[in-house]
Amino acid sequence: METVKVGITETIRVLLEEKKFNTLRDILVTLKPYDIATIFEELQDEKTPLLFRILPKELAAETFVEMDDETQKLLIHGFSDTELKEVVDELFIDDVVDLVEEMPANVVKRILKQADKDTRKTVNELLKYPEDSAGSIMTTEYIVLRPEMTAEQSIKRIRRTGVDKETIYICYVTDDNSKLIGITSVKDLLLSDDDVIVSEIMEENVICVNTLDDQEKVAQMFSNYNFLALPVVDTENRLVGIVTIDDAIDVLQEEATEDIEKMAAVMPSDKPYMKTSVFGIYKKRIPWLLVLMLSATFTSAIISHFESALASVIVLSSFIPMITGTGGNAGSQASVSVIRALSLGEIKFCNAVKVLWKEFRVSILCGVTLAAANFIKLMIFDLNGKENALFIGLVVSLTLIGTIIMAKLIGSFLPMVAHKIGVDPAVMASPLITTICDALSLLIYFGIATTILHI
Amino acid sequence: METVKVGITETIRVLLEEKKFNTLRDILVTLKPYDIATIFEELQDEKTPLLFRILPKELAAETFVEMDDETQKLLIHGFSDTELKEVVDELFIDDVVDLVEEMPANVVKRILKQADKDTRKTVNELLKYPEDSAGSIMTTEYIVLRPEMTAEQSIKRIRRTGVDKETIYICYVTDDNSKLIGITSVKDLLLSDDDVIVSEIMEENVICVNTLDDQEKVAQMFSNYNFLALPVVDTENRLVGIVTIDDAIDVLQEEATEDIEKMAAVMPSDKPYMKTSVFGIYKKRIPWLLVLMLSATFTSAIISHFESALASVIVLSSFIPMITGTGGNAGSQASVSVIRALSLGEIKFCNAVKVLWKEFRVSILCGVTLAAANFIKLMIFDLNGKENALFIGLVVSLTLIGTIIMAKLIGSFLPMVAHKIGVDPAVMASPLITTICDALSLLIYFGIATTILHI
Repeated sequence: METVKVGITETIRVLLEEKKFNTLRDILVTLKPYDIATIFEELQDEKTPLLFRILPKELAAETFVEMDDETQKLLIHGFSDTELKEVVDELFIDDVVDLVEEMPANVVKRILKQADKDTRKTVNELLKYPEDSAGSIMTTEYIVLRPEMTAEQSIKRIRRTGVDKETIYICYVTDDNSKLIGITSVKDLLLSDDDVIVSEIMEENVICVNTLDDQEKVAQMFSNYNFLALPVVDTENRLVGIVTIDDAIDVLQEEATEDIEKMAAVMPSDKPYMKTSVFGIYKKRIPWLLVLMLSATFTSAIISHFESALASVIVLSSFIPMITGTGGNAGSQASVSVIRALSLGEIKFCNAVKVLWKEFRVSILCGVTLAAANFIKLMIFDLNGKENALFIGLVVSLTLIGTIIMAKLIGSFLPMVAHKIGVDPAVMASPLITTICDALSLLIYFGIATTILHI
Repeated sequence: METVKVGITETIRVLLEEKKFNTLRDILVTLKPYDIATIFEELQDEKTPLLFRILPKELAAETFVEMDDETQKLLIHGFSDTELKEVVDELFIDDVVDLVEEMPANVVKRILKQADKDTRKTVNELLKYPEDSAGSIMTTEYIVLRPEMTAEQSIKRIRRTGVDKETIYICYVTDDNSKLIGITSVKDLLLSDDDVIVSEIMEENVICVNTLDDQEKVAQMFSNYNFLALPVVDTENRLVGIVTIDDAIDVLQEEATEDIEKMAAVMPSDKPYMKTSVFGIYKKRIPWLLVLMLSATFTSAIISHFESALASVIVLSSFIPMITGTGGNAGSQASVSVIRALSLGEIKFCNAVKVLWKEFRVSILCGVTLAAANFIKLMIFDLNGKENALFIGLVVSLTLIGTIIMAKLIGSFLPMVAHKIGVDPAVMASPLITTICDALSLLIYFGIATTILHI
């Protein structure tokens, strides 16, 4: 029963220094690929190829897949051609494709040179699919059955050919033209009598995706339908690959991270935070910071425009951050709810009216509550005994109601528009909406203030 | 080849009115449980029990699991006791537990009355595990093998007992005391010779979780280790259940939604957006809005304190939203990066110094870039020809650098502290950090302004 042990990397480092290879092997084979990969990443040592050689072949390949680019590059650099060939031969096709996509050109050349002819051909074909498409994450190693086979024959075939398939549990039934006509599972095959034929037990209503479908859509289908694998077909309905659930989970995690980053005005990246350089992080953050800072020019311009009004009732300026802040918060609450519902497929643009009506009613409730709380607070604390207290309190409270209605409507509407026109709704989140709400809430504020206070 | 068809619900509604049950059955059996469940949810009709009766037993149970609470409640209400018993018998134990957790007391009573004695006992035991623990999402229906069995015997046992197991692909090997001593897979069993014994092929280094482990940690392990199922043991290492990958995916999706909601100052909920009432949404949003609005009192107080300084150089007030906005954006960028890295397990509190040093360097780069861009813009546009332009420009630009450094350090440090003391780091995100940054950036602004402009 193992979980990653803190400090094991240090033990490994010492043992490696002392060349205690047998002990190292004994330790490593008790660990899972993901944990061994973590140790390699933490070592970042020229001796890692030495350590890698200790691993049994299959474990070595499984560990290799779990490592980050840097560690993979370091290892390949230390490999002889034979060693590289051994690793590449053990990898599943989709992992070779991932590797080739991440490595620099000279390393790719070495990898493809070591791969056998068939692998090279398949990899080159898979590389043609656009990034983030179903084709780019699928594997071509799956079990194919024919409709006329019996359950017994099918199980025999699986036992014969299953060893290098990424999953044997879902089997695909094709006709003479490689068209997908059904799927079945090892469970159904095992639980059937030996002489039942595949076409009788296979599921004919197969849900499949096209090679060009977006990987996010594909991953979402796993979550809806509880699949272990999903077949990928070309435009003529010929089976060309499968996406397995482990890759789908990675996509779901990546997409959630991407959404979260976009919502916080960070340009999304594939690299983990700790692995990204300072300059890399800077490049991801500075564009939005610049855009948002410059667009705050509008708010400055609005305040400048009402400079004389402000100068006559200077206390008004002290409420500006509270009003813009509350508007921004109210807007991002609405936008985030809508963005998440959009990306989980719960709402579509055709629900826009329903969503807006819902947000309108929510904003009335929120607005009135906040305005009341604020009015009481202003009367008792901030404005107590000041000139015009009642009117100023009224201005601020009315502004709050208007601001919240405006913010929630904009916050829910913009993501739906973005979704409709094919832009990722997540970029419409907090910061952008905050900036728009800032400007509009100031206009509401000064509009109400100049009317009520006659300034 | 089916995907959900828009408008099919209408067709179903019409056919149901016309009592064309055979046609309805022909249509429904071509669809997947998730899609049929969606149709039921959209119908929300008193006739749904009628439609449900048309479904074949197994499909009916699978569909029932996919429905939301409301629709389930509506259906159970329309069920006879026999019908209810049929559905409950077909469900997996973990799905019965979910159902019992969601339904009101009187419905739960009916459900448990219909369940057979063993099921009722198991359900009651599972209900004792705390919400969000591994025990609460596990199922007790799995395949158990003994170490001395041969591969052939194992396959026979799977064929005999597999029909009501949630997964047959991963099998658990236990000793006489029900202690988990290894796992193996149908793949390994099928690919071995018939007379190989289980203890020779089983994996002994089993990763397992405890019944009380947090479900988020459990789900994250699926994503790291590519499991199909994960064994759950009690404190004495006895196997008590398994968590399957479909439930793990749901947890990952839920947790991502929860993180995103918390980051936008919305209290998390389990219900989908469109299914939540206006008042329900209001209740989730108003607490944070109130807290954040009242805490903006600090910013108002700071501005009031510097009222005379502002009155003497009124143009200073026009830059307040830009400065607080930029500070807020810079802070939430940092906090979101750190929060996501924390929840993916990439960083821990012990990395705090490394993270802060990284954020410090990023903030210097961002700060200088923004300050330079802002200074140029101020000189050319906003302050061109105004009194004291150079000094005011200097004040604003220096404030930007100070604000961004402060915001990024706070934004990255607070989530780590929260994580350390056991609070969810996500609540430290944008809105809370924005409010803190607002107040501090104003102090920096007025501090620099009063020094340089001698006001």
